[in-house]
Amino acid sequence: MLTRPDVAIVGAGPVGLAIAWRCASRGLRVAVHDPAPGSGASQVAAGMLSPVAEAYFGEHELTGLLAESAARWPGFAAELVEAAGADVGYRTDGTLVVGLTADDLAEARRLWSYQQGLGLPITPLRPSELRDREPALAPRVRGGAVAPGDHQVDPRRLVAALRTAAEGAGAVLRRHPVGALSEVDAPVTVVAAGCGAAALTGLPVRPVKGQVLRLRAPGRGAPGFRHVIRGYADGESVYLVPRDSGEVVVGATVEERADTEVTAGAVLRLLRAAVDLLPELAEYDLVEASAGLRPGTPDNAPIIGPLPRRPGVLVATGHHRHGIVLTPVTADLVTGLIVTGEPDPLLAPFTPERFEIGKERTWN
Amino acid sequence: MLTRPDVAIVGAGPVGLAIAWRCASRGLRVAVHDPAPGSGASQVAAGMLSPVAEAYFGEHELTGLLAESAARWPGFAAELVEAAGADVGYRTDGTLVVGLTADDLAEARRLWSYQQGLGLPITPLRPSELRDREPALAPRVRGGAVAPGDHQVDPRRLVAALRTAAEGAGAVLRRHPVGALSEVDAPVTVVAAGCGAAALTGLPVRPVKGQVLRLRAPGRGAPGFRHVIRGYADGESVYLVPRDSGEVVVGATVEERADTEVTAGAVLRLLRAAVDLLPELAEYDLVEASAGLRPGTPDNAPIIGPLPRRPGVLVATGHHRHGIVLTPVTADLVTGLIVTGEPDPLLAPFTPERFEIGKERTWN
Repeated sequence: MLTRPDVAIVGAGPVGLAIAWRCASRGLRVAVHDPAPGSGASQVAAGMLSPVAEAYFGEHELTGLLAESAARWPGFAAELVEAAGADVGYRTDGTLVVGLTADDLAEARRLWSYQQGLGLPITPLRPSELRDREPALAPRVRGGAVAPGDHQVDPRRLVAALRTAAEGAGAVLRRHPVGALSEVDAPVTVVAAGCGAAALTGLPVRPVKGQVLRLRAPGRGAPGFRHVIRGYADGESVYLVPRDSGEVVVGATVEERADTEVTAGAVLRLLRAAVDLLPELAEYDLVEASAGLRPGTPDNAPIIGPLPRRPGVLVATGHHRHGIVLTPVTADLVTGLIVTGEPDPLLAPFTPERFEIGKERTWN
Repeated sequence: MLTRPDVAIVGAGPVGLAIAWRCASRGLRVAVHDPAPGSGASQVAAGMLSPVAEAYFGEHELTGLLAESAARWPGFAAELVEAAGADVGYRTDGTLVVGLTADDLAEARRLWSYQQGLGLPITPLRPSELRDREPALAPRVRGGAVAPGDHQVDPRRLVAALRTAAEGAGAVLRRHPVGALSEVDAPVTVVAAGCGAAALTGLPVRPVKGQVLRLRAPGRGAPGFRHVIRGYADGESVYLVPRDSGEVVVGATVEERADTEVTAGAVLRLLRAAVDLLPELAEYDLVEASAGLRPGTPDNAPIIGPLPRRPGVLVATGHHRHGIVLTPVTADLVTGLIVTGEPDPLLAPFTPERFEIGKERTWN
């Protein structure tokens, strides 16, 4: 048991644990504070590593960071599997973007045309090409595109592996809540507390509710499709993530609410879109319906860097819908900052300074 | 602890427990055998007491028994509440039968015309009358009828109360499975084991899977409607049962399968029909999705009476979708048979003799 750590991390989600692992591997004494490790947004995350399909209008800088982190994922996953001795469900089957109706396809095409304009790897497919790749798609599906570099990982396995790796490197987990930063005694404190960062730092991090379903292929076989499917179906946006275990994650709502109730309407919309796109899913077992809270920010980009006027306090939060894909780059950037004291130029657009701290509480 | 009981009952569902309560109240020594009391079909039953809306073409004798048992429900409920000191959620708000589209309404009307022809109390309503009774119904609902005598009870509370009442009257619960009737030592054995009756008796009782959802009104208030709603919605049949607690039971599939998996397609169909009929349900929490197995019979009627060639063995099973409504009359008839030795004439159409025992196993 360590006495006074070099680095105290508040929050044992993927970001906090990855920072802990990286810091501990560099020889730093690390303590991670969390009463319920891995119980936050990662529990309901699908684990899509989608820098291309997640590149939205007007989010250039975020798109760049997503691409940078996705490029680090193969190495990160390999290192983690080695360190933890556990699979994290990293798969490189690629992502199909599909539209059910002509309107849906027009909406999908508008976005992928933008992504192509940025030079990102996404290629339109003829309906026959789409069906060659995924014969299980509904005959009604009008068309789509493939993003071969958009991969996936299993977030629940990721958190378990990161915890094993962090503890294996010497990090210590302290299972108690942190109500204020003054309770933490370390020269460097990293706030990786997701939505909890708002109360600890005054930063404008707000909860964005997401509801998600988990289906299972009948007979315990693998799902009848290999790609991650991101679909538009009668105006609903849905993603379908197949896992080797037979699990299919169907998500997700994006709601400006702070509760974690599962609602009948959300489940209905997700199931309807999922079954419209892949009819065989009707025969799958519905094994879980759950809701979680993503840490959202005013510009949808994460907040990573030193907290102004609080020497020794860094933040790594506000990852919103991108916490899993951004885990490697966030861990690298924060660890680099702690070890060298020099911020990586990549950090510049994402530091806390872009917000007025403690004054933006009207969002809730 | 009693030594040798006068009556041994196999199965602690509502039927078995009600027989136990009635017999014990008459001074008989009663043992009830069940490793998991109340864990069968009653767990997923909605508790509709619907002799009218459940009166189907070609099921005259069953319809008569449903009406007889429904007539006994008010007294049965009052006695049980008194004996158990616990509420069973008995409500007399009546049932609305509604059709969403013109086709749905035609299907509903065909059945209620038949029910009216039998002299049963069901009255067509104009759409405006329907909406006066339940303003929460979707504007699209084309029409319907009211069956004021079709009531409801909460099956989970019913089982708990019956257990309290039976034990209070002296019945003893033995929590172990019965693999064969030879394991039971009593002058009279009652097989009230639901689907389990097939293996114990050779009677043609087969599992009929039902999937059911439980929603909860937001804010822990009561649901926004009072009647039981039995609806036809784009060809789907669904019922919606509101409880004072805020719970709404949405059911149910009828599937010739013996598994208890919850499937995505069934949940989708139930939710779609429910929300189409009562749009506000989209805002309700989805708190449970479950599946159970009803004990079905070749003619959809229960099997009640002495087992041929097995002196001292009575059966009370095969209640299919009607176990809750038929609980009072089943308990009265079986108890009467045990106490007097004389079968009530009501029993005649429902005795085991109508089936060839042990030879009808091809159904599965």
